[in-house]
Amino acid sequence: MITQVVIGIVCGAVVLTAGILIGHFGITKSGSSAPSWVKDLAKDVDESLIEKFMSEVDNIQIKENLRELTKVPHMATTPGDEKTVQLMLNRWQDKETGLDQAWREEYLVYLSFPDPKKPNKVTVVSPTDTVLHTAREKEKLYPPDQDDPDVVQPYAAYSPAGHPKGKLVYANQGRLIDYQKLNETVDLRGTIAITRYGGERRAVTAINAAPYGIVGMLIYMDLMDINNGLMSDVNETYPHSWYLPPSGVKRGSFKLEYGDALTPYLAAKDDTYRIPVENITGIPPFPIQPIGFEDAYRLICELGGEAAPGPWQGAFKCTYNLGGPGFKDSSIFNNSDVKMAIFNYEELRNSTNVMGVIRGSVEPDRYVIFGNHRDGWVNGAVDPSSGTSVFLEVTRLLGRMVKQGKWRPRRSMIFGSWGAEEFRITGSTEYTEQYFTKLSERTVAYINVDIAVLGDDAYRAAAIPSLQNVIFKATKQVDTPGLDSISLYETWKKYSSRTSPAHGHIPKMGSVSNALSDYAAFVQYLGITSMDMAYSYNTNKTNAHYYPAYHTAYETFNYASKFIDPGFFRHQAVGRTAGNILIRLADSLVLPLNCSDYAELLEDYLSTTVKLYQNKLEAKKISMEPLKRAVASFRTAATHLDEVIHGLDLANETPLKIRRINDQLMLLDRAFLNPLAFADKYATRSFALPPVSSV
Amino acid sequence: MITQVVIGIVCGAVVLTAGILIGHFGITKSGSSAPSWVKDLAKDVDESLIEKFMSEVDNIQIKENLRELTKVPHMATTPGDEKTVQLMLNRWQDKETGLDQAWREEYLVYLSFPDPKKPNKVTVVSPTDTVLHTAREKEKLYPPDQDDPDVVQPYAAYSPAGHPKGKLVYANQGRLIDYQKLNETVDLRGTIAITRYGGERRAVTAINAAPYGIVGMLIYMDLMDINNGLMSDVNETYPHSWYLPPSGVKRGSFKLEYGDALTPYLAAKDDTYRIPVENITGIPPFPIQPIGFEDAYRLICELGGEAAPGPWQGAFKCTYNLGGPGFKDSSIFNNSDVKMAIFNYEELRNSTNVMGVIRGSVEPDRYVIFGNHRDGWVNGAVDPSSGTSVFLEVTRLLGRMVKQGKWRPRRSMIFGSWGAEEFRITGSTEYTEQYFTKLSERTVAYINVDIAVLGDDAYRAAAIPSLQNVIFKATKQVDTPGLDSISLYETWKKYSSRTSPAHGHIPKMGSVSNALSDYAAFVQYLGITSMDMAYSYNTNKTNAHYYPAYHTAYETFNYASKFIDPGFFRHQAVGRTAGNILIRLADSLVLPLNCSDYAELLEDYLSTTVKLYQNKLEAKKISMEPLKRAVASFRTAATHLDEVIHGLDLANETPLKIRRINDQLMLLDRAFLNPLAFADKYATRSFALPPVSSV
Repeated sequence: MITQVVIGIVCGAVVLTAGILIGHFGITKSGSSAPSWVKDLAKDVDESLIEKFMSEVDNIQIKENLRELTKVPHMATTPGDEKTVQLMLNRWQDKETGLDQAWREEYLVYLSFPDPKKPNKVTVVSPTDTVLHTAREKEKLYPPDQDDPDVVQPYAAYSPAGHPKGKLVYANQGRLIDYQKLNETVDLRGTIAITRYGGERRAVTAINAAPYGIVGMLIYMDLMDINNGLMSDVNETYPHSWYLPPSGVKRGSFKLEYGDALTPYLAAKDDTYRIPVENITGIPPFPIQPIGFEDAYRLICELGGEAAPGPWQGAFKCTYNLGGPGFKDSSIFNNSDVKMAIFNYEELRNSTNVMGVIRGSVEPDRYVIFGNHRDGWVNGAVDPSSGTSVFLEVTRLLGRMVKQGKWRPRRSMIFGSWGAEEFRITGSTEYTEQYFTKLSERTVAYINVDIAVLGDDAYRAAAIPSLQNVIFKATKQVDTPGLDSISLYETWKKYSSRTSPAHGHIPKMGSVSNALSDYAAFVQYLGITSMDMAYSYNTNKTNAHYYPAYHTAYETFNYASKFIDPGFFRHQAVGRTAGNILIRLADSLVLPLNCSDYAELLEDYLSTTVKLYQNKLEAKKISMEPLKRAVASFRTAATHLDEVIHGLDLANETPLKIRRINDQLMLLDRAFLNPLAFADKYATRSFALPPVSSV
Repeated sequence: MITQVVIGIVCGAVVLTAGILIGHFGITKSGSSAPSWVKDLAKDVDESLIEKFMSEVDNIQIKENLRELTKVPHMATTPGDEKTVQLMLNRWQDKETGLDQAWREEYLVYLSFPDPKKPNKVTVVSPTDTVLHTAREKEKLYPPDQDDPDVVQPYAAYSPAGHPKGKLVYANQGRLIDYQKLNETVDLRGTIAITRYGGERRAVTAINAAPYGIVGMLIYMDLMDINNGLMSDVNETYPHSWYLPPSGVKRGSFKLEYGDALTPYLAAKDDTYRIPVENITGIPPFPIQPIGFEDAYRLICELGGEAAPGPWQGAFKCTYNLGGPGFKDSSIFNNSDVKMAIFNYEELRNSTNVMGVIRGSVEPDRYVIFGNHRDGWVNGAVDPSSGTSVFLEVTRLLGRMVKQGKWRPRRSMIFGSWGAEEFRITGSTEYTEQYFTKLSERTVAYINVDIAVLGDDAYRAAAIPSLQNVIFKATKQVDTPGLDSISLYETWKKYSSRTSPAHGHIPKMGSVSNALSDYAAFVQYLGITSMDMAYSYNTNKTNAHYYPAYHTAYETFNYASKFIDPGFFRHQAVGRTAGNILIRLADSLVLPLNCSDYAELLEDYLSTTVKLYQNKLEAKKISMEPLKRAVASFRTAATHLDEVIHGLDLANETPLKIRRINDQLMLLDRAFLNPLAFADKYATRSFALPPVSSV
């Protein structure tokens, strides 16, 4: 009986327990059980996924991307450009590694080209019109660099056509002070100036010159500024090194304002209103032609007149004279003119952005945008295809994770392969103009990679300061190629650093206020938190202003794979970093943006401004106190927001509270926009990013 | 045995069931139970709360509010204004019925006043300078309307001081075509014009006149335009009816652009940059003085010259002549001039907004703003205190629910008691300028109540069309005073209606594009979805352009409680409606804004534009197709959004999906902003709301 009772109790207990277990685990609680999305909404960035992503970034794949991208010249709107459009579309629409969606977006933009049937000519002609010297029309061929008929003749885009003729003068870097100085000694009316690249924005060298009566301009890269004095292609320059051969010529856009010239502030669609061509501003008032240093050498070393000032002297083995104007009496060019025959023309062309998207799972209406331009002046193996080859590798890995159903970002990722950047940041600007409102309201950040690798020394980034923290985090997780276990962060700091009141000795970030690539319209016009990055050379070890083949026909796969990044490990490092930052921005529950680092920049601006202007302003009875109070108030608010973020109990906060904080972080840069800040420059509306003024 | 087995099975079943029940209900599921906020985030508007709110809106309380508010004149920045500031603060800081927080916000604004020590004078003087007639300086007193020393002399704010003298001419309504017509017959150089209110914006009557050499202006309300021809205060006008007594003068601001004149686009704080006074635009170029119709009668009926055209004739019992210029030969004023001595002065004054807030529970970073201006020209019992008395009653009821812990809105409610509206929408504009970015990013809608009740006929609203649906919903729930069981919606429709392609026969909403009250900067400058409302008279039954005592000293509590709304039931109806809409906007899970109704307006604009301009544009080879495509594309997107909203499973959607849709609805009006739309009028940036052009 007892046994039976015990058995009964035991059985009862077992049954009860089974019941409890069934009731607790087996039956979903209606009403009070958590909806499935509760967990998804609280999900934070997955560190192991980032690690896996980084480990998969493939240097060989990047190399093959670059080879493919640079097979032919791909200047904007040419057949070569269309080939790269197709390549991007194929990759992004691939069934196994493509994005959710990819498409082309066209803009009808106003571009400038030389006439292949009437090449631009620069000659020295005697008083009897005998041609004494002709500048080289095309760059010299060094196998295996292909002699493609589509290599565009070196020219200055947006230089007007024309046939100026006049005595030559040497105007140093074409800065305002250079012309002022030159004008003290030489009558500049009717002259042609030769200037060196490197001291002033391209268009401005000509705009500065016009008031002095100068009628034409030649521009070149001095040996001193690019080649550390090396000039022989027999054993010194490319193909023997990365240095510029004597015939190499830097192309470029000589247009000051970014975006399509005929449709300011509006997307250049077929039916968009266009301003009259004669209303375009910020382009050269007279013809300009860039030439190689072999020609510049001939011209400059024959110049007469007084010797140019010390700082104007370059690396040619002669004294740089100002010009009589014109050549010296002892020269075979004595009394001769320089004659330019420029046949550039402008026309409306269809330029393509290739767009791609991975739709966000939780916040599809928040965008992280990653962009790179696609067009190069010639084969563009460094500018921009080093970036494009990395771009394709990053999107391949992300696309594959999506296609395999392993991952989908919290926020949407938008990828922009911009067209016609070389003509002055055209495709990306038109995109921001077309989607102005949506992008302003929804974009968390814009990551730009133009040139991914242009040297072997260190990674570096230029960014809005609120991104500093996430950039540092990513670069600490990536090894410096060739220096295992030393992070990109450490080598960057070695290359360029500063002392932060909050963080001590840290890498120094560059500024994105200079409108040098596709971040321009995002950050200046829309006020979107933006960054740019590249692996660069050590500027302390060379006088070169930039990598020597920049914008020349020598930017080929051969050049890049031999002299820029032989193993493509630096490309790989940039891909790892860009992807790391991109995933963090897209997946972090709380956006990895930091306001206090912004406050540090504003305080730095303030102290500089006080140093420079306080006395002058006080003399005019203008107080700086309101500005000081504003910066202090920003600091207080930033500190408070930091505290709120640190105090969050991430697992238990409501999704709308997190969203509120994220919106504050996302919209911070928009608060600095003021269309009235620089009344005549609507495109530079952010007063946290003053426009670069001309010297 | 069988029994035992059965008992055993039954017991086992009971124990198992008990276990299941304990397991399911007795033990909280760790990890998988819903966080407490899941329910809060999904909560929709509570209809019973709205009903309760409406039942509690108290007409007697509103009446007492009005009595208190109108005890003394409360022109902006005067001691009477400060009394109303204190009243608002006391109410909003009340422990039992106050808001979460209330505070004052000051702006230093540029206002214009007459000099109490040197009253403005208008006289008729003979060639020997004998004064033949003097216009009345102050309005006549009718007890119990108080003879407060603070009643400001009638004047035209922003009219410059000056002493013009000249022959009088009659210029009808001061429209451009009126001066053109008059100038065909009369040499206007050196003349003084008398014009009637009602055909043109105040400042523009003078701006139009200056090119013709006119040097001063008198302006008055014609009997025809305000009093249905009645003019005797013995038995016809106030205090016997709501009609304007002969000495009543309409004051007003003669400044064209809204906001503080010296700080365009910037909040007028102590340290804000101010433009030089001489750069102010849109103010009269010569002195203006408003006069009563008893004086206008004397002047106009003595005028010489040709008879004015038929449509220029008013209701005085005489022929309105154009002026010789000057008076007719048979007049005792023959050969006399009109002489004006205007002593207006401008100065910077501190004007106060009183701000209050009820913090949202779920989305505190979304704002519904409810505003009303506080300043009246004199006692302001209609304009604006009818609105203020309702405003206080609505906030009392909302505040009480919050203080009692019964309710807290989903979104934040912001209450603005604006200062200096009468001087041209000053306080609200400065507020939008100060918090431009935050308000743009976060404001769901702005509800304006200026004058709550100005007549006895019907409720009406002016609004952005996306608000139409919520306004209709609310007005269907409020009975028309005196007509139980007939809703405000029905009487409104009777008063003014239209046929909508989508909804059939519906009430006709007015437009908020006219900048007549504090919604101006919200809707035009910030692109915030806005509305205005009032209970009005039947314009079909009277010629009066507005309620007759508008902006005169007769806008007293006595006037309002006797002739505008004796039982205060119309005030009550406006309070019920405003509160109803406010609660719906703040509490609805999905914002009650409708894009398809917006599409209907755009289609209506388009068809009008096509009718008016298509032929003319086609003749110039300008196609309207892109505009048509844009409107069609808006319609498609609106239909799609409607479908998405109707397809929502509200109880189960994620909060971020609802937020995404709400953001689309909230930001719709921002998408119509374009600072370049009207290049010289930055404050009217919305191209869905074209600025009112002058005739």
